[in-house]
Amino acid sequence: MAHHIDINCDMGESFGKYTKGRDAEVMPYVTTANIAGGYHAGDPHVMRRTVALADDHDVDVGVHPGLPDKLGFGRRTMDASPEEVRDYVVYQLGALRAFADQLGVPFQHVKPHGAMYTMLSESEEHARAVIEGILEVDEDLIYLATDMNIYEVAQEYPIRTAFEGYVDLDYRSDRSVVIPKEKTARDPELVADRFISIATEGVVETPSGEQLDIPAESICVHGDTPNVVEILEAIHDRLDDTDIELTSVADIV
Amino acid sequence: MAHHIDINCDMGESFGKYTKGRDAEVMPYVTTANIAGGYHAGDPHVMRRTVALADDHDVDVGVHPGLPDKLGFGRRTMDASPEEVRDYVVYQLGALRAFADQLGVPFQHVKPHGAMYTMLSESEEHARAVIEGILEVDEDLIYLATDMNIYEVAQEYPIRTAFEGYVDLDYRSDRSVVIPKEKTARDPELVADRFISIATEGVVETPSGEQLDIPAESICVHGDTPNVVEILEAIHDRLDDTDIELTSVADIV
Amino acid sequence: MAHHIDINCDMGESFGKYTKGRDAEVMPYVTTANIAGGYHAGDPHVMRRTVALADDHDVDVGVHPGLPDKLGFGRRTMDASPEEVRDYVVYQLGALRAFADQLGVPFQHVKPHGAMYTMLSESEEHARAVIEGILEVDEDLIYLATDMNIYEVAQEYPIRTAFEGYVDLDYRSDRSVVIPKEKTARDPELVADRFISIATEGVVETPSGEQLDIPAESICVHGDTPNVVEILEAIHDRLDDTDIELTSVADIV
Amino acid sequence: MAHHIDINCDMGESFGKYTKGRDAEVMPYVTTANIAGGYHAGDPHVMRRTVALADDHDVDVGVHPGLPDKLGFGRRTMDASPEEVRDYVVYQLGALRAFADQLGVPFQHVKPHGAMYTMLSESEEHARAVIEGILEVDEDLIYLATDMNIYEVAQEYPIRTAFEGYVDLDYRSDRSVVIPKEKTARDPELVADRFISIATEGVVETPSGEQLDIPAESICVHGDTPNVVEILEAIHDRLDDTDIELTSVADIV
Repeated sequence: MAHHIDINCDMGESFGKYTKGRDAEVMPYVTTANIAGGYHAGDPHVMRRTVALADDHDVDVGVHPGLPDKLGFGRRTMDASPEEVRDYVVYQLGALRAFADQLGVPFQHVKPHGAMYTMLSESEEHARAVIEGILEVDEDLIYLATDMNIYEVAQEYPIRTAFEGYVDLDYRSDRSVVIPKEKTARDPELVADRFISIATEGVVETPSGEQLDIPAESICVHGDTPNVVEILEAIHDRLDDTDIELTSVADIV
Repeated sequence: MAHHIDINCDMGESFGKYTKGRDAEVMPYVTTANIAGGYHAGDPHVMRRTVALADDHDVDVGVHPGLPDKLGFGRRTMDASPEEVRDYVVYQLGALRAFADQLGVPFQHVKPHGAMYTMLSESEEHARAVIEGILEVDEDLIYLATDMNIYEVAQEYPIRTAFEGYVDLDYRSDRSVVIPKEKTARDPELVADRFISIATEGVVETPSGEQLDIPAESICVHGDTPNVVEILEAIHDRLDDTDIELTSVADIV
Repeated sequence: MAHHIDINCDMGESFGKYTKGRDAEVMPYVTTANIAGGYHAGDPHVMRRTVALADDHDVDVGVHPGLPDKLGFGRRTMDASPEEVRDYVVYQLGALRAFADQLGVPFQHVKPHGAMYTMLSESEEHARAVIEGILEVDEDLIYLATDMNIYEVAQEYPIRTAFEGYVDLDYRSDRSVVIPKEKTARDPELVADRFISIATEGVVETPSGEQLDIPAESICVHGDTPNVVEILEAIHDRLDDTDIELTSVADIV
Repeated sequence: MAHHIDINCDMGESFGKYTKGRDAEVMPYVTTANIAGGYHAGDPHVMRRTVALADDHDVDVGVHPGLPDKLGFGRRTMDASPEEVRDYVVYQLGALRAFADQLGVPFQHVKPHGAMYTMLSESEEHARAVIEGILEVDEDLIYLATDMNIYEVAQEYPIRTAFEGYVDLDYRSDRSVVIPKEKTARDPELVADRFISIATEGVVETPSGEQLDIPAESICVHGDTPNVVEILEAIHDRLDDTDIELTSVADIV
């Protein structure tokens, strides 16, 4: 029996005349695109173009909502209430879904960005408000859980939930992830090793040699890693020798 | 046979700690609420609250999208392309629709705000882009046309279109409307006379006594007219003696 | 010898078509205006109008810088670095000073707003960055210190510093202030009693009867207290029987 | 006698995590930096860094104010009044000047950006409002005039005014400039020829061979021309054989 796993990547983070990311180069290698909703990044035109690009490559789309802080790229936590964060998610979800509808592309999931994700991980009350908000809008949407705290809260709800693993960042023993100040190039073969290990066995090795359970349905690949395309090529090259099938998360959970 | 007509009002124009309009007082008297989408006015929390308020009064909701110019309250035309304006409409439409979905309220229509409406009236290319965008998102939505230029463009498309009349502003002979710098109180009885005249005969009299054809399915009442509640009461008082039934535009077109 | 004390009030918090505060009614009663700098509130036109209004009443002006969060009115702390907050202060300080220069009005002080003030109170590192930034721009500016933490940090620098007392809010025993969710009307005579007590003796009584040392050079009166004008009248009425002279903070420190 | 001419370049157009322009590579070759003021581009941190970079290279600084339209990069005209545009200029001027003051760098000039410059060129009333606003703030500031319309209005005021010429864009016979949709690489030798010709004779040749009078005190080099560094090197290489001295515009007008 084949192993099915999804590759997701944050996309559509350009804004106006500002370009960010290498969406056109990365899109051919992924199965799910998390598209910024215009708060931390993105704008209506970028959103439309990114949905269209995903569609060209049969990549499923969802929204990557952030805090209303374009100046800080949504990476600064703020003292917003659970209801405020929920409303930011609903707003951006709806905005992106309209572009998906307009272009005839299925809209499948929600994956919070940056400091919003941190806030949901640290406050169960915030996580609940967001999950309830998504369910109220559309009970078929998928929540792409960036860590175990949120994943466990989501399990209490009738929401389709996927757990995400990381291969271009290092895990600590407690399954938290080391997020470097500046992204640097990673060894494509090491990243590909981890990808195969998570996809086939649900485990990943820490830099210190510890084996961690990472029962991920989706692997996040960071588009701002300098050699992201090389990394994605290395992962795809390995797939030929395995029974791993890249599959959108929508067909897994 | 009864005459059916809708009363629409712009709502949800508060922002953050800033309050604007008297939505709670006006909502009981109208049948359609045009809710700001967060660009010229409104924010996610205001949008949610306004949708909920409309729902409490069985008022149908749609989006009132504006230009991305909160500083100018969306009242300054700008040199944005047809595609840019279309994308602003789709974005705000989607955002508001998500709140309607979340609260289980039907989402029915689009009525552009301020300078965006002026741009659509003056440029057929802009009007076409917006109408096509709305149709692509959802072919059942209604376009609430604020003037005859846009109405005529809309007639070329398979879009449900309602024509809007004004009773608290004065028409000129060419069916354009005199928009005062500052809204002042209007004579409630005069406004009610005009309402009855449009609703039953499709005509309205200019200040100079000319009769104009205004085949409106919906009457716009401006929430920022100082005595708007008194005006709405005067209109409602008159209805008892007529065969006019207030009916959401969704049930008319 | 007369007692000299300043009354300061936050002003210029309107934005675009949104009105907030009763600046025109309050200005005649105060000696110092803290004018919003366009981040949490205010805009270039409001700033100019407010500087001109202050000038009409011989009220000294300074900037009331806030966090870049108009949606939250600058009342939500955010994870911004000391350098980021310093740069927000310098930016808004400069912007307001240019309007003061243009209108020929002296620009005298800086008083951080809302969550920014909280952040400075809680992080000495943030307080230092802001104070150093102000000194670098102009070593004659006054820092209006909203609490003792910041005041003590400021004392280490060659910056002119004024300590602010409150009379329309209640102190706790630790000299912190109870900030209500919604401002309600206060007893004007009680507020005036406190004003006289701080101005003449540098003490104020808590609701539980405790005497606190509040060596304030300036009293903050909140423009959003519903009966603020009545409160200011009560304070002014009392002055006739005392040797208190209302004096801009610039002439005290 | 030596010919003195200034080279100015728009700088500081990055925003938050978004990078734009090659300021560090270009700064060594220019004498005047026009730094974005946070409206169309730039932010407080970018402004500080750019002023510091200019200071490192002894480059004079001024503000490059734009319309409040970051989404459109300030390139879309909008129906803002003369007073509104003036206030936008004063606000951004003051903000940038504060960073110059903080870093001890002289603040010398104002050069409007993009659609704001177009609006000033097309409306004398707007041009007057802006020039009067600048003079009121500081009568020693220089207005860097991007075209002859504005230059002629400025001549009526006691404002120091410099006229700007272009060498990396083509002039039409009427001295307007062809602005391409996308900047492409230009022949460095042709650009250098034009530079020498304007600097020494005050004339430039159109692509069709016509000689135009361009009595410029400053040459604008566009930082977004793909080979801008090569162009600047070619210009500098030529200087050795001439009596042209690169001189900040502040020392010319």
